[in-house]
Amino acid sequence: MSPSFLDSLRGLCGDGNVLTEPEDVIPYGFDGTAAMKAPAEAVVLPGTTAEVASIMRLAKAHQVPVVTRGSGTGLSGGSHPVPGGLVVCLVRLNRILEIDAPNLTLLCEPGVITADIDAQCVPLGLFYPPDPGSQRISTIGGNVANNSGGLRGLKYGVTRDYVMGLEVVLADGSVAWLGSKCVKDVAGYSMKDLFVGSEGTLGIITRVLLKLLPRPAARRTLLATYRTLDDAARTVSDIIARPIIPCTLEFLDRKTCHCVEAFAKVGLPTDAAAVVLMETDGHPAVVEDEATAMAEIARQNNALEVRVAANAVEAAKLATARRSAFAALARLRPTTILEDVTVPRSRLPEIVRFIEETAARHRLEIATFGHFGDGNVHPTFLTDERDKAEMERVEEAMSEIFDYTISLGGTITGEHGIGLAKKPFLSRQFDTGSYRLMRQIKQSLDPGNLLNPGKIFD
Amino acid sequence: MSPSFLDSLRGLCGDGNVLTEPEDVIPYGFDGTAAMKAPAEAVVLPGTTAEVASIMRLAKAHQVPVVTRGSGTGLSGGSHPVPGGLVVCLVRLNRILEIDAPNLTLLCEPGVITADIDAQCVPLGLFYPPDPGSQRISTIGGNVANNSGGLRGLKYGVTRDYVMGLEVVLADGSVAWLGSKCVKDVAGYSMKDLFVGSEGTLGIITRVLLKLLPRPAARRTLLATYRTLDDAARTVSDIIARPIIPCTLEFLDRKTCHCVEAFAKVGLPTDAAAVVLMETDGHPAVVEDEATAMAEIARQNNALEVRVAANAVEAAKLATARRSAFAALARLRPTTILEDVTVPRSRLPEIVRFIEETAARHRLEIATFGHFGDGNVHPTFLTDERDKAEMERVEEAMSEIFDYTISLGGTITGEHGIGLAKKPFLSRQFDTGSYRLMRQIKQSLDPGNLLNPGKIFD
Repeated sequence: MSPSFLDSLRGLCGDGNVLTEPEDVIPYGFDGTAAMKAPAEAVVLPGTTAEVASIMRLAKAHQVPVVTRGSGTGLSGGSHPVPGGLVVCLVRLNRILEIDAPNLTLLCEPGVITADIDAQCVPLGLFYPPDPGSQRISTIGGNVANNSGGLRGLKYGVTRDYVMGLEVVLADGSVAWLGSKCVKDVAGYSMKDLFVGSEGTLGIITRVLLKLLPRPAARRTLLATYRTLDDAARTVSDIIARPIIPCTLEFLDRKTCHCVEAFAKVGLPTDAAAVVLMETDGHPAVVEDEATAMAEIARQNNALEVRVAANAVEAAKLATARRSAFAALARLRPTTILEDVTVPRSRLPEIVRFIEETAARHRLEIATFGHFGDGNVHPTFLTDERDKAEMERVEEAMSEIFDYTISLGGTITGEHGIGLAKKPFLSRQFDTGSYRLMRQIKQSLDPGNLLNPGKIFD
Repeated sequence: MSPSFLDSLRGLCGDGNVLTEPEDVIPYGFDGTAAMKAPAEAVVLPGTTAEVASIMRLAKAHQVPVVTRGSGTGLSGGSHPVPGGLVVCLVRLNRILEIDAPNLTLLCEPGVITADIDAQCVPLGLFYPPDPGSQRISTIGGNVANNSGGLRGLKYGVTRDYVMGLEVVLADGSVAWLGSKCVKDVAGYSMKDLFVGSEGTLGIITRVLLKLLPRPAARRTLLATYRTLDDAARTVSDIIARPIIPCTLEFLDRKTCHCVEAFAKVGLPTDAAAVVLMETDGHPAVVEDEATAMAEIARQNNALEVRVAANAVEAAKLATARRSAFAALARLRPTTILEDVTVPRSRLPEIVRFIEETAARHRLEIATFGHFGDGNVHPTFLTDERDKAEMERVEEAMSEIFDYTISLGGTITGEHGIGLAKKPFLSRQFDTGSYRLMRQIKQSLDPGNLLNPGKIFD
């Protein structure tokens, strides 16, 4: 990176917003992905869309690649620095610009913390449903770039379902507004949908227009424990066949149950092979009916125990079992690799069982938890990145799990993205036509390969 | 079109599936768009994806442009033949291939009639919500290509919200599968979302994987009449502020009310300036509460009358008022041009009033009805295409309505698409960056400009 490039950056954004000292850039050399680090050469923190556009024009003129990031909670290495690249960190663009209650929309900058969006909605009786695990630290821009999921996917969908419009800075530094406040809008191609989930490889998101919902009036949380995985899986399929679409249907396997109990002391039975956390929300009468029906279905499927939270405090306690899963597991071994395969819901018992068998075959510790209602499971490798032999077995096991997932009609990533971590596996999931199509899009929108190069594709 | 090209087509699809006689191709020379016709030179009706792919390779080799169509119910000229082009009609690809109840999905070919999809869902307790006005004739492939709306947009969204996967034949004749049965899938760009609403300009849709919902258990229909537009608009905004998100909130203006009453004799008051049809569905207790609240809100806003349907037969009768609007209006003058502007919901009174003023200013008859809950209105020009002077005034009025819509943050098309009819206006709605972006996508995916050329863009 040339001194003149850095000087121009300082001129644009102010000296204090351009970091180049080694100790300053260290925090920008990694995200939430285990066993992945890369040195950042320079970091810029712009304060306006105009500054982002100028940075992009400058980067183009100097042929400097750009990696955009927010809080860096990503789990696929999508915001890792690239060699010779500039890190553009958008956390200063952190204003909520408008809440338009009559039209049920919220306009904000990309650096707003995800959880703050719903928090701003509460007093207005409004609701922003997507709740990724990282919601208290992650930024909405990162959520949009990765199309983040969360615990409420089955009923409420994912981040994409709430993006009505985006302002983006393109590879040539031009600014484009995509979408509108209209509930229906079919003018031209849905370009916003192309940018949602594109992981910073097509443009830099500088504004986000979100759809809001009315806040559900009531909520009820249940926790059921089972002696077998199949009983848990049948509970889930019977609930959906009833038909009930709960907002949450979360699952913990035997190993995760044990770790959570040791860590959080929530009173899970030690002989449980599976725990299912269920939550229904909406109109009080519906919530009452659905909670009763779900408890009944769980008992019919041989639940060891069904606990129904009497109030919000108890509900929060039950939810702790699920929310603490990652923290509980991360204590056991030095390196925790959180995987993210997803299958059509009916194939869940097959993938969970395959993960167990794969762990045994490769002498690995894998605990599995996740979003049962969405078919999205997180096989979590408890390992040690310093143990080369074990890491090789981890790689092999992962590869086998990906292949099996794809054979079930699943996807190698339900909510974490491709980034660097899953790039080698992407072409296995796609046919030649669709893989080529995606590369064509990238080539067309970023011909100089300046936007997060080497992510998603080589 | 060369004889050798036509011979090859006949060899591929069978003599009976290639039409070239003038009397055979007449029905393919227009769609549902008023005052638009173009002669079709040749029509092919393929029976498999492989045939569609072969047709596309042949068209590429001979440099013959291709226009895809289904039943031809489009309202923007999107499936009009292009000069020297081949019409590919997909109505023979009309099989429902799978209903996967545990995963709430349906896989079908593009020629399936829209209404048949939901009809197949009924016995299974499942629900396919999108219900465009043309649902008894239109094909699902056309719905996907145009991202069709319907009466249930506010609560249930539009066709895009139900497309989980697509098989498409690309410009070079290759076949690509986009999407999956997974509720969450963030592997690569969301290419299916690029094809939804692309109006046949990026590829030919040969299979559609749809998301289904559980069927709502109860439903209640109400009809309220008003002396002023503002009372009707306030009812809608008060309902949403309550908060209630009904599945239907439809609107008829004074002129439409008069025509509907003269045509369908549903007993609308002759002094009504506005009629609002409301429908709530879901759990019986919710439906009861919401229907009561909506009736109360209507009365508080000076409704002349609020009728609540006691049963399904009465509900169907009330819905007739809205469903017969277009037919009632189409009787009055030789040419009926159905427009389709959409604004953020809170701007509805402004756009409806502007349409009324514009009609007066240009001495035109415009009746307006539409989807109040979605901000999507259909100003309907009652005119005569043989009267050149009047048609010029229609063009001017339309142009003014489009500009005003855009100034309110709206879109020139909520559910009908751009096609040929709105192509001249598209660039008014988009900034330079986003308009160029869309053209880049088209250029990249269809470099020979063979797929529905001249539609959406020049």
